[in-house]
Amino acid sequence: MNLRIVGPTPLPPAVCEALARPMINHRGPEFAAMQARIVNSLKTYFQTAHEILLFTCSGTGGLEAAVVNLLSPGDTVVAVSIGVFGDRFAEIAELFGAQVHRLRFAWGSAADPDALRAKLDELANVRAVLITHNETSTATTNPLQELARAVHERSDALLVVDAISSLGAIHLPVDEWGVDVAVTGSQKVWMIPPGLAMLSVGPRAWEAYARAKMPRFYWDFKKMRDAMAKGQTAFTPGVNLYFGLDVALELMNAEGFENIRARHARVAQHTRDCAQAQGFELFANQAFASNTVTALKIPPGVDGKKWREVLRKEHDTVIAGGQKELTDKIVRIGHLGWVNEADIDACLHAMTAALVYVRAS
Amino acid sequence: MNLRIVGPTPLPPAVCEALARPMINHRGPEFAAMQARIVNSLKTYFQTAHEILLFTCSGTGGLEAAVVNLLSPGDTVVAVSIGVFGDRFAEIAELFGAQVHRLRFAWGSAADPDALRAKLDELANVRAVLITHNETSTATTNPLQELARAVHERSDALLVVDAISSLGAIHLPVDEWGVDVAVTGSQKVWMIPPGLAMLSVGPRAWEAYARAKMPRFYWDFKKMRDAMAKGQTAFTPGVNLYFGLDVALELMNAEGFENIRARHARVAQHTRDCAQAQGFELFANQAFASNTVTALKIPPGVDGKKWREVLRKEHDTVIAGGQKELTDKIVRIGHLGWVNEADIDACLHAMTAALVYVRAS
Repeated sequence: MNLRIVGPTPLPPAVCEALARPMINHRGPEFAAMQARIVNSLKTYFQTAHEILLFTCSGTGGLEAAVVNLLSPGDTVVAVSIGVFGDRFAEIAELFGAQVHRLRFAWGSAADPDALRAKLDELANVRAVLITHNETSTATTNPLQELARAVHERSDALLVVDAISSLGAIHLPVDEWGVDVAVTGSQKVWMIPPGLAMLSVGPRAWEAYARAKMPRFYWDFKKMRDAMAKGQTAFTPGVNLYFGLDVALELMNAEGFENIRARHARVAQHTRDCAQAQGFELFANQAFASNTVTALKIPPGVDGKKWREVLRKEHDTVIAGGQKELTDKIVRIGHLGWVNEADIDACLHAMTAALVYVRAS
Repeated sequence: MNLRIVGPTPLPPAVCEALARPMINHRGPEFAAMQARIVNSLKTYFQTAHEILLFTCSGTGGLEAAVVNLLSPGDTVVAVSIGVFGDRFAEIAELFGAQVHRLRFAWGSAADPDALRAKLDELANVRAVLITHNETSTATTNPLQELARAVHERSDALLVVDAISSLGAIHLPVDEWGVDVAVTGSQKVWMIPPGLAMLSVGPRAWEAYARAKMPRFYWDFKKMRDAMAKGQTAFTPGVNLYFGLDVALELMNAEGFENIRARHARVAQHTRDCAQAQGFELFANQAFASNTVTALKIPPGVDGKKWREVLRKEHDTVIAGGQKELTDKIVRIGHLGWVNEADIDACLHAMTAALVYVRAS
């Protein structure tokens, strides 16, 4: 199957093998050694000298962990949103009692650093700014460096970044840009199944942790840090996902971080170029086009659901539809993790063939 | 390796194969069909006609989910505790703002239904009673049927049961005993790696959900129920664990529920008999001995840590130590999931051999 959704992404054979290994004691020395290797490699991709924590959960669990460990009910938070996942991040913070000020931008556009500056100037005591790095729902990458600059220039707010579908593939030097917590998810660039969220936690985040009063148990940063310092985890971890991640990171290290980012940029450009050459129209503002996912407008008069169904049944190719208000307007092609140009060629070819069929039927 | 901790438990080869399958779209029809099969089988083991929800997390996440979906801050809760995991359940509820009254019993004993009756008579408006069915830390199984009877006889409290290390192996008819929410974890009886928590949610629990005010997003029961009704999950699920669970349940269905429970009872009795025959002393009150784990006292003068290290290094056998105040006092042998008498014979034989070595060195 040519699985071209935005995660889970395809698994390299070596990762599949690793996932099938016999269980081990998650409190024994093999696990400790494996976790140390994983954390060590992840620091390279997060470009951080600070702590990395791993939680057994989906990416959304990682976002919830970031919120409840840094904030107290009543805290003022700015949530920058350019799509479904930006809205979700805001909703989590609000649900746990933060005073959330949404800074929303039209779907398909990126966030404007000057608008963020203005919002921060207008509000007092902003405790945290939540930003989605790569908005999966609209295939748009925010100008995070500029947004981060705006945050630090105009406030003491923590910068908390949903990097679930970007980290490892799109440039994001966590320490250099002053990202206090960044969150990613195992089923994206990391080439393993869903079930692990990985977070970097910087020194300012730990200060915030000490005063944060939102309730937390499963997500507790300190419980996890203390356990990881002993080579363990706070609660029983997804052991076979660790096996997979250990091997996936080995593959990534062998390819090299620069090469991985270059490949994602190249494959993304290839996707956009070929899609347009085949007559498709791109959805997002191309100045902020994502290097991990591309959104195409569904051609007028075409039933997007049927198109995807024909693709799946007749061409063994799975792409994503749009979400919420984009449901009948776009389709999305994931190109992250274990992907190259040939996967995209096959996908786009199948899309065109299926389209001919859908239009004729 | 003879992995005889209390989870993760060993994986049957067919499960390993399933874990290595290529990823699929978690919002596509194959996933929906698989989830339907899984839920259908799980209902047999939970012995419930009501809803089953699956969350991507460790067992502890499942306990947190039960607490935050049923309760409001300030609610009166009785937490029955006979060990580490009973204490943890109480701690979670307290941390989210419940008024928790602990009813603790000496470690190695079971809870006394009359003491629970007295506690419920003493308190007004108890909203929930939290009980650990099988206390993994002390290898003791609570008399849940009698405890459940006490709860329903003396109160309208919800009965919330941590059945993480019992469900599927130890008799627990959820509906018949009036268990409102029961929680289990994938790495126990279910023969797959850690990373999924499975919960039954009865009608009284849904009523409680409607009025419960603890904050929840990732754990939200309704979000999950609504998504599962569409063959999906609220957030990206641990897809490869679902592959494994689907196959593991097929194996379990082929063996038959009665046979599985009988096997666990038989292997547990075998463990206790052989351990005693080899001169070991059992830790727990044997009237309440667990059928999934056995705790042995560390013989006087023996360094338990060294004993387990020799076992691991020289005999490729891994057993669990004690937790908290039992750290240097007991070791624990897990006998749940994919286990038979021969695994126990090999383990006990190795334990005796290692003991001779540790004593001599």
